[in-house]
Amino acid sequence: MHFADHLIAEMKKKNSAVCVGLDPRLAQLPAFIVNEQREIHGDTFTAVANAFLVFNKGIIDAVKDLVPCVKVQIAFYEEYGFQGIWAFEETCKYAKEAGLIVIADAKRNDIGSTAEAYAKAFIGKTELFGEKIAVYDADAVTVTPYLGYDGIKPFIEASNHGEKGIFVLVKTSNPSAGDLQERVTVDEKMSVAALMAHFVESWGSEDLGEFGYSNVGAVVAGNSKKEAETLRKIMPSTFLLVPGYGAQGGGAEDVAPCFDEDGFGAIVNNSRGIIFASNGVDYAEAARDAVIKMNEDLNVVR
Amino acid sequence: MHFADHLIAEMKKKNSAVCVGLDPRLAQLPAFIVNEQREIHGDTFTAVANAFLVFNKGIIDAVKDLVPCVKVQIAFYEEYGFQGIWAFEETCKYAKEAGLIVIADAKRNDIGSTAEAYAKAFIGKTELFGEKIAVYDADAVTVTPYLGYDGIKPFIEASNHGEKGIFVLVKTSNPSAGDLQERVTVDEKMSVAALMAHFVESWGSEDLGEFGYSNVGAVVAGNSKKEAETLRKIMPSTFLLVPGYGAQGGGAEDVAPCFDEDGFGAIVNNSRGIIFASNGVDYAEAARDAVIKMNEDLNVVR
Repeated sequence: MHFADHLIAEMKKKNSAVCVGLDPRLAQLPAFIVNEQREIHGDTFTAVANAFLVFNKGIIDAVKDLVPCVKVQIAFYEEYGFQGIWAFEETCKYAKEAGLIVIADAKRNDIGSTAEAYAKAFIGKTELFGEKIAVYDADAVTVTPYLGYDGIKPFIEASNHGEKGIFVLVKTSNPSAGDLQERVTVDEKMSVAALMAHFVESWGSEDLGEFGYSNVGAVVAGNSKKEAETLRKIMPSTFLLVPGYGAQGGGAEDVAPCFDEDGFGAIVNNSRGIIFASNGVDYAEAARDAVIKMNEDLNVVR
Repeated sequence: MHFADHLIAEMKKKNSAVCVGLDPRLAQLPAFIVNEQREIHGDTFTAVANAFLVFNKGIIDAVKDLVPCVKVQIAFYEEYGFQGIWAFEETCKYAKEAGLIVIADAKRNDIGSTAEAYAKAFIGKTELFGEKIAVYDADAVTVTPYLGYDGIKPFIEASNHGEKGIFVLVKTSNPSAGDLQERVTVDEKMSVAALMAHFVESWGSEDLGEFGYSNVGAVVAGNSKKEAETLRKIMPSTFLLVPGYGAQGGGAEDVAPCFDEDGFGAIVNNSRGIIFASNGVDYAEAARDAVIKMNEDLNVVR
């Protein structure tokens, strides 16, 4: 199935535009989970990796009937070396088996055979002595556009004609985003973010799904309503992945323009506000409550 | 020791500006290495990871007295999941123990605590129940500037006042680099690449080493002499990491302007031209010969 159609089908089924960010941090994990793994594995990266996985499974089980997708930020796993990457792999696998669409937030970027290697790892297949094996097997991966189309094309080629998705960084929510993204270019008389938005819209034009959305999405910050309006207009066929809700300052009103008139076309991520709603034994239940609340808030504006 | 001073000291000691790219690819590895690991580990990612490590150790042993540094492209390891990342870690460790400066080519980019997690993994230390552990423990890591200073600062902070380095993507050699990097901005009347060069020069100004170079370097493509001249002038205190030599089209004349008048200030990477000089049992010897040749070529122009 086309990535965008898959996402829309799950959004309809669960009546939700929420993406849960699985971004575990050792210091904020419930103590009972960490202690149990320390007893088994000692003070090792393996203990942390297993604690992350146990924690994530609890969250996934608690929210899987409420949201279409999860976003897994690989940086928090890479901090613990290959053991952490093992937990990332297992988390992606568990979330997929639970019926969730998995977005690997990796912001990868490179060119040629290097980008192909990343694309294979995240959304494609690695060749192994005649076999082809999906490694992380995510449904989509985030990428960065500094290298231009050469850095995007290998991911599009690995997407199997739209079955997998990518989300290209277009506009972020951080204070210094303007260092580059808000510069205006001479020839096009538009900001770099707007220029990238035009590129993204065209890069995805080859593989549109049933509802007119491509598999080449965009990351657009959810903390400025006006900007969301502008970028949504430039990218009518582009699914938006919207961070910046909750902990990063955006509210339902700010992200409202990201949705199309049917309430689709965008998913809104929240990590800390959901997964760390409680750090007690009720953490999964608290995450579920936070998702229910966020679903309600977003469903009012979409 | 300051990263730039360390690099210059090793360049002097070995009379070399060559960086060897450790970018193994299964299909191009000597058959005897791959077969040996398949016999031990079967047709598994573990076999590939071990083959990569054996191959890399052979290269490292053969070139360690000839070059100041190696660049390890993590994408080729990530293609084989956490087992591949294990080989990446072990390769970095072995190269450091062999007296080589290790540059992790990861092109990471993110903001806030996410960028901090990446910075810890590559050049800093991860906290583990009161201990602090260096994970990949590279001497430097490549990063991408699409997010502005917020995406760079956590890496600078993790650098321990210049002891570790970063190389920021400024200008790449791929055909579509111009999609973004060659756009001219209205206010500054310069290309995005030139604008980023100005940023990099200023971002590194806090921690200069003994020879006037900062620990915030730049990646500048080695396939255009004119561009190298321009960017070198904008960034007098910035060490350049120059890809694009050999397989990607650049020659000694093209990269000449990257060096300062003393022949320092830049290192030139070559991967395929060295590590795949032969795919027979003589691969390490062939790599050594290729490095000797490249040292001679570069030493003429610097």
